[in-house]
Amino acid sequence: MDRIFREHMPVKLAKDKFLSAITPITRMEDISIQKCPGRVLATHIIAPRNVPHFRRSAMDGYAMRAVDTLGASPLNPVMLQLSDVVEEGTCARVGTGQHIPEGADAVMMIEDTVSMGDMIEIRAQLHPGKNVGDIGEDIRKNEILFNKGHLLRACDAGVLASLGIRKVKVYCKPVVVIIPVGDDLVPLSYTELPPAGKSLESNSLMIGLYVEQWGGVPHYHDIVPEDTTLIKQAIEENLNADMLIISGGTSVGEKDFVPSVVASMGELLVHGVGLSPGKPTALGRVNNKPVVCMPGYPAAGLVALFVFGRPALRKVANAPDVPDVIVKAHLSSKIPSREGYLSYARVILDGKIAHPLMTAGAGILSSIAKSQGFVIIPEHVEGYEKESEVDVFLIE
Amino acid sequence: MDRIFREHMPVKLAKDKFLSAITPITRMEDISIQKCPGRVLATHIIAPRNVPHFRRSAMDGYAMRAVDTLGASPLNPVMLQLSDVVEEGTCARVGTGQHIPEGADAVMMIEDTVSMGDMIEIRAQLHPGKNVGDIGEDIRKNEILFNKGHLLRACDAGVLASLGIRKVKVYCKPVVVIIPVGDDLVPLSYTELPPAGKSLESNSLMIGLYVEQWGGVPHYHDIVPEDTTLIKQAIEENLNADMLIISGGTSVGEKDFVPSVVASMGELLVHGVGLSPGKPTALGRVNNKPVVCMPGYPAAGLVALFVFGRPALRKVANAPDVPDVIVKAHLSSKIPSREGYLSYARVILDGKIAHPLMTAGAGILSSIAKSQGFVIIPEHVEGYEKESEVDVFLIE
Repeated sequence: MDRIFREHMPVKLAKDKFLSAITPITRMEDISIQKCPGRVLATHIIAPRNVPHFRRSAMDGYAMRAVDTLGASPLNPVMLQLSDVVEEGTCARVGTGQHIPEGADAVMMIEDTVSMGDMIEIRAQLHPGKNVGDIGEDIRKNEILFNKGHLLRACDAGVLASLGIRKVKVYCKPVVVIIPVGDDLVPLSYTELPPAGKSLESNSLMIGLYVEQWGGVPHYHDIVPEDTTLIKQAIEENLNADMLIISGGTSVGEKDFVPSVVASMGELLVHGVGLSPGKPTALGRVNNKPVVCMPGYPAAGLVALFVFGRPALRKVANAPDVPDVIVKAHLSSKIPSREGYLSYARVILDGKIAHPLMTAGAGILSSIAKSQGFVIIPEHVEGYEKESEVDVFLIE
Repeated sequence: MDRIFREHMPVKLAKDKFLSAITPITRMEDISIQKCPGRVLATHIIAPRNVPHFRRSAMDGYAMRAVDTLGASPLNPVMLQLSDVVEEGTCARVGTGQHIPEGADAVMMIEDTVSMGDMIEIRAQLHPGKNVGDIGEDIRKNEILFNKGHLLRACDAGVLASLGIRKVKVYCKPVVVIIPVGDDLVPLSYTELPPAGKSLESNSLMIGLYVEQWGGVPHYHDIVPEDTTLIKQAIEENLNADMLIISGGTSVGEKDFVPSVVASMGELLVHGVGLSPGKPTALGRVNNKPVVCMPGYPAAGLVALFVFGRPALRKVANAPDVPDVIVKAHLSSKIPSREGYLSYARVILDGKIAHPLMTAGAGILSSIAKSQGFVIIPEHVEGYEKESEVDVFLIE
């Protein structure tokens, strides 16, 4: 490994290393289908009945016995009596999707008939089964409808409901404990302007709301001072959670508390990644629980959360990662980047034009408020020129 | 207009006509920032304080008076006394982002110093303001932080929280009444196998869960029989809602109830669109409330819901439409399509391969369960060949 990669691990390697150390949760619960969108099936779903559970018509027309149409043509039509019951010499009106009466075995489309009061002129010959949707034609009883691991959607709830399924067994939502670390933080409950040097601790709320959005249950821990013993205690007391996200205390400097505590309690898999902003991110595992140590700077923390926190949480939850929403745009000015770093440049989207934010330091709050998305610049690329077409990853 | 367009309006025209007839809601409410993701701001948000509200350091280093560094260089260093207070001849240790003590007006990065116990050797000259983040540098008090109409994200909640903002004024969530119509439907509360010819009414649940997902509040109406008076009554009783979605009773045939009732009560803007599946969709307005009349077939209803229901609901809610999630794939076989129709072909995604579902009738439930997305074929294109690269629109 060259010098750069000793200092910061490439993002892909760091992510692979971290994700492969994660064991998805196995706890399950039964939930109502009303609550199923976004949840992950913990068992296969077997169709409890046939769909349709009755023979239905594929056309608007008349149900009849195919044998009664033998030889019928426009020049040589057959007359059938309109009836509710289908037997020799009778037919019944059916709409598309409607039940085909017992005695019938075929449906003639309305275009091949002429209605003459209660007699119907049949102008074509049918073979048995024509325009008849068989029982189980759509879904066969006992077939696997959804596989274990399927991420349920609202439309799936409709399918389940139509089969009479009211509850499904899904994986529990992972509990994610969020621990803010910092001597310069005051809790959000503080209603005055914080003293000089102090800031409101707002990262936990941001992280927690994303955790909810991505299918987890956030638990908010109090602010922990930059003290090895207290950080260790906070981690220890929360190892019953499924994942820990620690915000702050990760920068490689004098007070590099959190990663060293994680290393002492379990494994520190990654410390320092080729991600800009987000370099001080550390990733580890304590008691088999993944621990994401995010930089405390909001913009750096946000990027680390998207790059590592989201896929980790989704893996814990047995869910596929959330797909990125990407729009194409042209840059209104050049974006520089650091070679060796996967760079997340914040941009303002204005239709098809992306304006790079110039004051895009890791701590700059306004850059989060103003930007709609990131332009991601690969490690080996030295920035993008003005007017380049780029992919903009929208910030959820 | 040629014959085809008399029978079915092109999707784009139908959508434009419908959306331009929609008035967004104006009701507002105050909500906690904890609940803000996905909501739309009903007022501008003005920054109530400066960020930072204290001068902070942009570097790890020492805060000092710039004047004390006059002429300093590696060959001609200046010595300053380490202290907590900055005055003539002293300096104070500061970390990135930390408060700069009163008397200081510049910060020297640690790399330009040598620490010698409580004396610091200063090896460079600073100008006033160097590495000092001014009060309000990031966000200036009274600036507009977010515009009215901004769709709030979890990261915005973090920005708001860090400014001491606890509540925001947002538009209320639109109330959407969902009315299922059909003589062949039994309610979901029915626990037995429905009689032959009858089906469980599952469309309402599917629609309602999407309404929730897209930021509305679904109200579920009981099943209404295919009877003009009863349909009219159901619409009339729900005109206090912000939008109505009626499922079923739209096909152009013998029992074309719903569109004619809408026409009699208000305006029927569209009836029959060049959409496959989904042709019988009707769009109208009663008492200034948008009414979407969806086909009762689940697959057709789903497509109509995505194409018309979603953008309509988002417009009512003052929100931008939900961005589509698109993945690229190659077709494993040809997809045919009908000229003149915007066709939504359901596909099974298998990595980068999209397998078109062959049994893709409008009523086929299993095709919803099995498909991950749609390949959308424009009106003027006659299907896609095997191995074409296509955009697959993932089904949320």
